Amino acid sequence: MKAVVYRTAGNLAVEDRAGRPPGDGELTIAVAYTGICGTDLHIYHGGMDARVGVPAVLGHEMSGRVAAVGAGVAGWTVGQAVTVMPTRSCGRCVACRRGRSHVCHAMDFLGIDSPGAMQSSWTVPAELVLPLPEGVPLDHAALVEPLAVAVHDVRRASVAATDHVVVVGGGPVGVLIAAVAKQRGAPVLLVEPDPFRRGVAGRIGIETIDPQTVDPVAAVTEWTVGAGADVAFEVSGSAPGVATAVDVLTTHGRLVLVAIHTQPRAVDLHRFFWRELELRGARPYQRDDMLEAIRLVASGAVPVGALISRTVPVDAVTDAFDALDRRAGVLKVLIDWQAPAR
Amino acid sequence: MKAVVYRTAGNLAVEDRAGRPPGDGELTIAVAYTGICGTDLHIYHGGMDARVGVPAVLGHEMSGRVAAVGAGVAGWTVGQAVTVMPTRSCGRCVACRRGRSHVCHAMDFLGIDSPGAMQSSWTVPAELVLPLPEGVPLDHAALVEPLAVAVHDVRRASVAATDHVVVVGGGPVGVLIAAVAKQRGAPVLLVEPDPFRRGVAGRIGIETIDPQTVDPVAAVTEWTVGAGADVAFEVSGSAPGVATAVDVLTTHGRLVLVAIHTQPRAVDLHRFFWRELELRGARPYQRDDMLEAIRLVASGAVPVGALISRTVPVDAVTDAFDALDRRAGVLKVLIDWQAPAR
Repeated sequence: MKAVVYRTAGNLAVEDRAGRPPGDGELTIAVAYTGICGTDLHIYHGGMDARVGVPAVLGHEMSGRVAAVGAGVAGWTVGQAVTVMPTRSCGRCVACRRGRSHVCHAMDFLGIDSPGAMQSSWTVPAELVLPLPEGVPLDHAALVEPLAVAVHDVRRASVAATDHVVVVGGGPVGVLIAAVAKQRGAPVLLVEPDPFRRGVAGRIGIETIDPQTVDPVAAVTEWTVGAGADVAFEVSGSAPGVATAVDVLTTHGRLVLVAIHTQPRAVDLHRFFWRELELRGARPYQRDDMLEAIRLVASGAVPVGALISRTVPVDAVTDAFDALDRRAGVLKVLIDWQAPAR
Repeated sequence: MKAVVYRTAGNLAVEDRAGRPPGDGELTIAVAYTGICGTDLHIYHGGMDARVGVPAVLGHEMSGRVAAVGAGVAGWTVGQAVTVMPTRSCGRCVACRRGRSHVCHAMDFLGIDSPGAMQSSWTVPAELVLPLPEGVPLDHAALVEPLAVAVHDVRRASVAATDHVVVVGGGPVGVLIAAVAKQRGAPVLLVEPDPFRRGVAGRIGIETIDPQTVDPVAAVTEWTVGAGADVAFEVSGSAPGVATAVDVLTTHGRLVLVAIHTQPRAVDLHRFFWRELELRGARPYQRDDMLEAIRLVASGAVPVGALISRTVPVDAVTDAFDALDRRAGVLKVLIDWQAPAR
């Protein structure tokens, strides 16, 4: 089988490896598609070398079919379509003991802390595998994981159909958050400077503005007839993004912090006081968010296919990472493990 | 009648004035006690000259008795013990229209935006007057307003008896928040560098630590057997106070922002993401918070009398402001309008 292996910053190798048969309690999956995530790019640039043990097989967004069933595992059939929830909590830390395993302090994130889905054959604990309804296109199903992030974020924000929602940042997760909030019935406005990203969002019916030419606060004030937004999602990871997300909110507005900010940000706490705003951090999903994401993909309620810019064979993986880096007209790129080499 | 009048920074004059009789819908109150608040000190130093129209009568913490009843006002008797909710919302802004009148965008705050309670005879709209149960000591009742702030803050934090609560900053509001949270059954730890303030808190049974000699994060970790606090209140108004309030929190912890931060603060947003923390701004109270504060004072459930460091005649008001400024062994100082001049 083939695997994408990261060893040092800027270098990915495609290697032939022996697949690992399933042990007790495991399943082996013939991977169909693996998505490339911003975290994969971050690892690729050496930004997570302190956490990622090399050589590392990246990847945590995927779909596939059961190829082999380990001892002690019941209820699965070879050929069944599946995806994987790539987070494995420790069960022992304070968060796990309090039933908040998705914020486990010692999380094993497959594709970061242990081997991931950028391999044509992937052996994982059976309890992380989730069945897909028959008929779901497997390329779409590779977006279940980032969609689960969006489902979790929208849940953290308690979005209702009466809420005006602003999403700051139109990468894949930002566009998916906008799509899920819209699917909940809320009016949504996406703030994104990149015209390609605005184009993708626009094609699935999401209203967008370019903050380089339109002042987002003025636009939101007009859009909400002077009230301000009820919910803002900070998905840009930038200092101006934080300021925008705070400034667009109405009294009692909720800001959900999705992006990773590696440095402290100056926050207008007086506005939090004055308007009784709320800031809510959001980590990745819980199991229910994955199940809801599967439902939304299977029903077509969130048209995830529109986000897929390219589907490439594994030998084009470095080109795909570089295209994502350059934001060269790509939003989500999938590795197709069945595609012939270029 | 006498009134404390602010004209320029650092100057308070005690003036003899004619009292204003009650107009339609108004009550005139013979003021018994007026508390001096941090906001009054801020005005005294010229910090709110842009908002406060001079000459200004300060004061918004008080108790007294009905002295005269205006036309069209029913249900009040002369001599009845009362306090005043000093906030009057506009009824027309977005916040008011949404039923959030306590965060009114055009709030009239009596004692800031219009004449306050530092006068022996105060005429106010009857709908702002709240009856006190007979027998409540009127000096204690002058603390109903700051206690209502604390009740509102504890409500914003959704404090439960199973929560470990940390209060950062032991001024009057910080001590009252600690007392209300403790009254709700929660274990409480107050972080305050000033030994006098720690002493007051300790006398009403609140556990305290001095952040100059004990690391608050280490202390909270030990106190919570490794978990961290469920709730933190930032009442210090300082940059280190914000950092402490963020750092002591456990997964899914709630930080309620009580203090006014006039400048943006560097906030560790990664920790908000990683632990799914929440930040909730808190403005002053709603009417229900005032009613709850009256109940807590009347029943003695919150021993507010312990916070009263001095009760002074009105001619000593400048000395009282200066003592509060120097933090010279005083926490809450009341003006006693019936006391003979020194």
